[in-house]
Amino acid sequence: MLITLTTDFGLGPYVASMKGVILEIDPEAQVVDLDHYIGAQDVREGAYVLYSAASWFPFAIHVGVVDPGVGTARRAIAIACEGAIFVGPDNGLLVPAAEAFGIKEVRHITNKEYTLRRASYVFHGRDIFAPVAAHLSKGVKLRDLGPEISDYVRLDFGTPVVDEEAIRGEVLTVDRFGNIVTNIPRNVVSERWRFNQDLEVSIGGYDIRLRLLRTYGEAVEDALLATMSSSNFLEIAKRNGNAAAIVKATPRMPVSIRHAG
Amino acid sequence: MLITLTTDFGLGPYVASMKGVILEIDPEAQVVDLDHYIGAQDVREGAYVLYSAASWFPFAIHVGVVDPGVGTARRAIAIACEGAIFVGPDNGLLVPAAEAFGIKEVRHITNKEYTLRRASYVFHGRDIFAPVAAHLSKGVKLRDLGPEISDYVRLDFGTPVVDEEAIRGEVLTVDRFGNIVTNIPRNVVSERWRFNQDLEVSIGGYDIRLRLLRTYGEAVEDALLATMSSSNFLEIAKRNGNAAAIVKATPRMPVSIRHAG
Amino acid sequence: MLITLTTDFGLGPYVASMKGVILEIDPEAQVVDLDHYIGAQDVREGAYVLYSAASWFPFAIHVGVVDPGVGTARRAIAIACEGAIFVGPDNGLLVPAAEAFGIKEVRHITNKEYTLRRASYVFHGRDIFAPVAAHLSKGVKLRDLGPEISDYVRLDFGTPVVDEEAIRGEVLTVDRFGNIVTNIPRNVVSERWRFNQDLEVSIGGYDIRLRLLRTYGEAVEDALLATMSSSNFLEIAKRNGNAAAIVKATPRMPVSIRHAG
Repeated sequence: MLITLTTDFGLGPYVASMKGVILEIDPEAQVVDLDHYIGAQDVREGAYVLYSAASWFPFAIHVGVVDPGVGTARRAIAIACEGAIFVGPDNGLLVPAAEAFGIKEVRHITNKEYTLRRASYVFHGRDIFAPVAAHLSKGVKLRDLGPEISDYVRLDFGTPVVDEEAIRGEVLTVDRFGNIVTNIPRNVVSERWRFNQDLEVSIGGYDIRLRLLRTYGEAVEDALLATMSSSNFLEIAKRNGNAAAIVKATPRMPVSIRHAG
Repeated sequence: MLITLTTDFGLGPYVASMKGVILEIDPEAQVVDLDHYIGAQDVREGAYVLYSAASWFPFAIHVGVVDPGVGTARRAIAIACEGAIFVGPDNGLLVPAAEAFGIKEVRHITNKEYTLRRASYVFHGRDIFAPVAAHLSKGVKLRDLGPEISDYVRLDFGTPVVDEEAIRGEVLTVDRFGNIVTNIPRNVVSERWRFNQDLEVSIGGYDIRLRLLRTYGEAVEDALLATMSSSNFLEIAKRNGNAAAIVKATPRMPVSIRHAG
Repeated sequence: MLITLTTDFGLGPYVASMKGVILEIDPEAQVVDLDHYIGAQDVREGAYVLYSAASWFPFAIHVGVVDPGVGTARRAIAIACEGAIFVGPDNGLLVPAAEAFGIKEVRHITNKEYTLRRASYVFHGRDIFAPVAAHLSKGVKLRDLGPEISDYVRLDFGTPVVDEEAIRGEVLTVDRFGNIVTNIPRNVVSERWRFNQDLEVSIGGYDIRLRLLRTYGEAVEDALLATMSSSNFLEIAKRNGNAAAIVKATPRMPVSIRHAG
């Protein structure tokens, strides 16, 4: 079965150890890297990445490890959905992606039969989440992992505030090109504005006039623009350049959009 | 079938989405990362990387996505070669690698049957190139993708100027070690000089006397040297060090080589 | 058969070429990236990474390429162990991992039948180690590679000095979180101290009082702490932060630990 991995470890020995553990338990598993460069311990960014990529996969077990609470009382969980299973810490990381699929059942992983015998206190990715995913891949049932729970930790990307004057949201993530993905969903934008309209965006102390465009290449050379991200959120970008560097955008920075007067 | 991916996305959710789309369409496909750290929108560097790595693979479908023109009028193409198929934007990215194999046929991808139904304007890697590659992997024929074209965008690495005094070329790429790969082919060098001869290299405002050697370890400790890259171009390197940092080498920087007086 | 790759190349065309060569020879091979971000030419760090990750894999051929001596007289070797085979340069890189499995036999790779016909002087990863690994994966026997040797280059992580006053070791590696892994093994620490005791650590010119804890989350918010790394060495970390940045830790920096008075 297909198993994807999302971590903040970087592609190195920690991720490799997880793959080794998985292949030891289920040599037939097909392991795919989803992302290993989540900001260190940035649970919300990890949640966004899982949310934006998992839906493009056929049925898979998605393992997420962005885990500042490793070794403490925070629980390990598995979530069964319509077309996917998620395995990871109970800190909200898995929730937006799982909700997009539709959550059927959440289990607290307590059965030590499916984790490494001497689980370390510092690396549950290798010692708990990887072996649980591999056992699920081999056919173990979710109900065998532990008791069903409903009080798992919730996380969402926030709801933009919409009023007469403006739409106010915040930065979700910045990609390698410096494109700024906000938490303002496509439909909230499209109810009010159309492509090729001019908007005024306030972010990081800057007030910027820019155009809402279908794609980068429609902008004037080197201009800032607004567009719809491939994950269907409002995105602020610069044609042939790095928008985030200009406004020094970072996750959680407030963004507001209004009609350009 | 084997499918390789070359992008400027970084290893993260964009690449993962492409893999998800491919595996959804063809669960039997074997996806291999060729490179995801091409300089942002640097089509020429991407073309070099594809050129230098693709030839080492058995028959494969190579997907390249370095695509500043995404969503504009630039075409999506597929190129059939003797031992490979290339899929990506019509901006030259695929051409040097395809020419090295020998181009048999180039198709403009217009058949929407093999792309995602609602292709975004900002992410053709996921919505066009990945599904087309997966359908080819499953047996779809190149001729089913769209009309044959011959006016595809050409790209080459430039031809060094050779005269009595010097060979003048430019920097193709800089690797992680700071080795500087130029666009001066091995045979142009070997017609004039032999290993263990001393050369004078002008690059980035520096005039450097160095020796043409078979390998790094033959240089005096910490010395700059010239050698032949594993892709058979003249390379400037530093034993146990970073040559690019010394001369601040960047892609397209002019390089000239003459006999050391 | 499973083949893992550990290099200092970065994930790019060099690694891709190795994968291409392997899949050309053995299309059935399953190639897994172990790590490609070893510090450039840092053989000792590469040895640590191989050591810490390889043991988690089922039977595999582990290829290591951190190779400052490429193209010189340094030998290419293959090491057979109880549950693994290692292939790479004879510079110590493979030795700690192989010794952890138990070395059965070391061969000097001299048989040109299993390497690329025109091996370059600068890229033995692609031209020697990758094809040898692929041939082993297909069933070639170790004894067919070349003569057995016993004078291969040794490497270890050093033995900490233990006296009445202190344990003195050094830094092995720093991970992406800034956690500092030392060469002081778990058992050396646990013979003298217990969890929840206070220690004084001297590193990089700093004398730091910190607590030995089971995991990061048990520390006071933002405090430095000592813990046991997932590879069972003493590790110095900062809760929700980067310990290495504070003390400017680098590989080989001396570390000493004593009882906090």
